[in-house]
Amino acid sequence: MTHVPAEAEKNTRSVMVNRGPFEIPGFVAGAAESGMRYSGRPDLALICCEDPGGCAAAGVFTRNRFCAAPVELCRERLEGGKARAVLANAGIANACTGEEGKIRAAQMARLAAEGLGSPEDSVLVCSTGVIGRQLEVAPVAGIMPRLIGSLRPDGWQDAARAIMTTDTVEKMASVRIELEPGKTVTVGGIAKGSGMIAPDMATLLVFVCTDAAVTPEVLQHWTSAGVEDSFNCITVDGDTSTNDSLIVFAGGAAGNSPLTDTTSEQSLAFGDALRSVLRDLAIQAVMDGEGATKLIEIEVSGAADRQSARQVAFTVANSPLVKTAFFGADANWGRIVCAAGRSGVPLAPERVSLFFADLCVFQNGVPIGGEKVEEEASRIFAQKEIHLRLDLGEGNSSFTAWTCDLSFDYIKINASYRT
Amino acid sequence: MTHVPAEAEKNTRSVMVNRGPFEIPGFVAGAAESGMRYSGRPDLALICCEDPGGCAAAGVFTRNRFCAAPVELCRERLEGGKARAVLANAGIANACTGEEGKIRAAQMARLAAEGLGSPEDSVLVCSTGVIGRQLEVAPVAGIMPRLIGSLRPDGWQDAARAIMTTDTVEKMASVRIELEPGKTVTVGGIAKGSGMIAPDMATLLVFVCTDAAVTPEVLQHWTSAGVEDSFNCITVDGDTSTNDSLIVFAGGAAGNSPLTDTTSEQSLAFGDALRSVLRDLAIQAVMDGEGATKLIEIEVSGAADRQSARQVAFTVANSPLVKTAFFGADANWGRIVCAAGRSGVPLAPERVSLFFADLCVFQNGVPIGGEKVEEEASRIFAQKEIHLRLDLGEGNSSFTAWTCDLSFDYIKINASYRT
Repeated sequence: MTHVPAEAEKNTRSVMVNRGPFEIPGFVAGAAESGMRYSGRPDLALICCEDPGGCAAAGVFTRNRFCAAPVELCRERLEGGKARAVLANAGIANACTGEEGKIRAAQMARLAAEGLGSPEDSVLVCSTGVIGRQLEVAPVAGIMPRLIGSLRPDGWQDAARAIMTTDTVEKMASVRIELEPGKTVTVGGIAKGSGMIAPDMATLLVFVCTDAAVTPEVLQHWTSAGVEDSFNCITVDGDTSTNDSLIVFAGGAAGNSPLTDTTSEQSLAFGDALRSVLRDLAIQAVMDGEGATKLIEIEVSGAADRQSARQVAFTVANSPLVKTAFFGADANWGRIVCAAGRSGVPLAPERVSLFFADLCVFQNGVPIGGEKVEEEASRIFAQKEIHLRLDLGEGNSSFTAWTCDLSFDYIKINASYRT
Repeated sequence: MTHVPAEAEKNTRSVMVNRGPFEIPGFVAGAAESGMRYSGRPDLALICCEDPGGCAAAGVFTRNRFCAAPVELCRERLEGGKARAVLANAGIANACTGEEGKIRAAQMARLAAEGLGSPEDSVLVCSTGVIGRQLEVAPVAGIMPRLIGSLRPDGWQDAARAIMTTDTVEKMASVRIELEPGKTVTVGGIAKGSGMIAPDMATLLVFVCTDAAVTPEVLQHWTSAGVEDSFNCITVDGDTSTNDSLIVFAGGAAGNSPLTDTTSEQSLAFGDALRSVLRDLAIQAVMDGEGATKLIEIEVSGAADRQSARQVAFTVANSPLVKTAFFGADANWGRIVCAAGRSGVPLAPERVSLFFADLCVFQNGVPIGGEKVEEEASRIFAQKEIHLRLDLGEGNSSFTAWTCDLSFDYIKINASYRT
């Protein structure tokens, strides 16, 4: 299994994704340390369009009913399809904080807007961290000049590090495509995981910028479509966060003919590029899931429809018994079949088959068995990236979900997260 | 919180449940060691009605689509509402074993039937353990005379031990009630947990006998109703097993006027007694959940309807982030509220309140906060049994779920269950 998985290759054009440093003409990024909750590390990130007038912007946000104050602020301010910057803090989520939380989210935005000399409503804010605690605004005010001073074209890695909480590595991805002869555009973004990750959402925090010229409507279209095929296909622990926010800015510095529809070849190519970046960031988030030691790709094929395939895939992907078996490198296929059987999808056991990579371990409801199969299965389970395919024998629809294993470290990280 | 929780007291008459040894006139139980998978411990249990003609019997089984071969056998044989005995083995589940599995389940039943001198279809079989492996019938045949020789009125504890897999203690519960003047009846049962425990099912294995005279229809009615208020209210890890089987026998040795309806005072009293036994066994299963160190009672009140309350309660009860916080004694209420918010129930954040025991930590969408509340919450979280109540402020319906925490030992037990 490669980092751009089979499913991606089937559905989309092949786009090379780069996880190293990148720059995006027209945008700058930076980071600083407010000391609000962490010490000795940056915890504020600022991403900014150089044009004081801002640019096209789109977003996808959590569907959790307790959405955080900054999520509400972003939703409102993105209604016009335009923004200039996003300020993000790590450590305190500003979720379940009532009216006071909304006031503080707006204050954060105002501080950045004043520093940038932009209208207040052109700045978005995002937060991640402990739920139920109020943000501290004073340290943000104090450090704002330094944060704005840190902005530079190659500041993305600093920004990616500043938004980390329990993440162990920063997550960056970018692609470059030639949209029309002589007009190459870049799509690049950063993300943070790494717990409270589940579908039916955007993800915790993801910021993507591009120098392509795109109308807000087209940008929102490809953003929503891209999320459906990326962050809505992953799970670490099945817990959808209060703060999931994915924001995409399109500045237009590439000088391409603006993308104004969703059907032209250029627009489709842009959509593929954006999806590739989002999918790569999503997979990076799973690989760095809390306590994760393995990346597991769960493909459900032969389903009657995509929703059924998705339901089976996520039931398997979220099963603690399946996830601990992966951690223990125990090729306990019975747990995978059992999870599929309780998914609520009316599947026929006698038509179900299960494969680890290309190895069939369960065919039409009957185990293959034998020492050789058991040995080969164990060899596959010892790998760091595992592909499994469950064929339901019902139809032609499929869905691929990505998850990680459930390890001692997940418990360790989460038994005392607030202290 | 006592072992018979608040909810039980509200809905039902108070019945004293005994977890010690019991006997049930008209029934015998026993155990023996086949060596099929474990060594040095009994792994076969036999429960038998002394009347060779059998007695009324009822059952509730898993809704997993991959139900095990013995589950299919039991379902078929219970259609007539009558049976004499149940033979259970621990270590191999006989699930996902195809036609061969069905043949072996029937062979197991035949061996017991021959030993008991009863018709083959009067014997039920249940299995628990590894999925996908075939039962070994020869060791069962070899040990059958000894198993039948072990049957005695006080053999329940031996039987309860023989069906354990990852359970750490045997689970027994019984009640005695006077059904009519001078006619006291006993309802007693045993159960095993302790992983792959989730609602929408019966539970792994539960066997209950009573000397009350009850028609099969009435017995099935109270069995189904009792499961709804007991085993369908618990979860250890959200994984519904392939083998869940709950079987109830009613022998009639008590000599009461047979219960032929579900509305008489006697019948209601019997229903309460059965429910009390089932609920106590269910709570014992949670307390002995894999790796469990705490019992958590999650009451959702003020819901628009029972189904909404249930959905919120189970979303909280199955959240790995909530469960690890309980393990770490971290009163991280934000995770509880967050889980409720992603449950799919359209709740209004500004009407939601959360209580730990009687301590309000979140009121109408706003945290109470303060050092005192934090200290008191930590004190409550340090206890072994924790009650929390989430009030949705929508209506008058409620649901209580029981779960346990998620600890290092859960990972340890399940990372290498088959080896």
